Amino acid sequence: MNEFMQKVNLAEKFSLFQEYWNPKIVGELNDSYVKLAKFKGEFFWHQHEAEDKLFFVVKGKLLIKLRDREIWLREGEFMIIPRGIEHLPIAEEEAHVLLLEPKSTVNTGNVQNERTLTRLERI
Amino acid sequence: MNEFMQKVNLAEKFSLFQEYWNPKIVGELNDSYVKLAKFKGEFFWHQHEAEDKLFFVVKGKLLIKLRDREIWLREGEFMIIPRGIEHLPIAEEEAHVLLLEPKSTVNTGNVQNERTLTRLERI
Repeated sequence: MNEFMQKVNLAEKFSLFQEYWNPKIVGELNDSYVKLAKFKGEFFWHQHEAEDKLFFVVKGKLLIKLRDREIWLREGEFMIIPRGIEHLPIAEEEAHVLLLEPKSTVNTGNVQNERTLTRLERI
Repeated sequence: MNEFMQKVNLAEKFSLFQEYWNPKIVGELNDSYVKLAKFKGEFFWHQHEAEDKLFFVVKGKLLIKLRDREIWLREGEFMIIPRGIEHLPIAEEEAHVLLLEPKSTVNTGNVQNERTLTRLERI
């Protein structure tokens, strides 16, 4: 039996961790992972060369800066950032975000720095 | 510019249609579509041979029957049905559901009948 073949309650999963900008894997399907992350503060400009990525706001709000505009995402809203598009996520207050992206996606995209995560926890 | 490169508000999109068991495409990323559907009543047993599928309940509740058990999904809960697993979705009352599945996925899986949709609307 697939370990993920059980339901996932988002609120319950979000209660299991507190650190920011550290996505946790909560599901996998086809070639993608479903991840949950808490964001607070500003990330940095980056892009994913080969992967489209979905941000869905579960709680709070998230500002996605693109080079040509800014989009506020609120609870119940999602946005897909196509591959190759530079973006900068900012959360003034803590935001709870569901991410969907290919398994190959690295959190910091084309940038490698101290915030790059090489292994994500499953919760 | 990608037509989907704008935010999607789930409640707003759900207000645009009323028919049941007729998923609407609201986003695409990588090889998958994000779809919204309203369910009411009982679908029928089917499986998807090559595609894993995610059901996320946005409003109401959804019963997923598997051959060996039943899972109730409530608001804020999702479940992934792996390829090849027979399932039967049932919504006693109207339920609003977000689906994520490969573009190749047909709504009725291995079954072809009057409820099979060959073309999905984008909203």
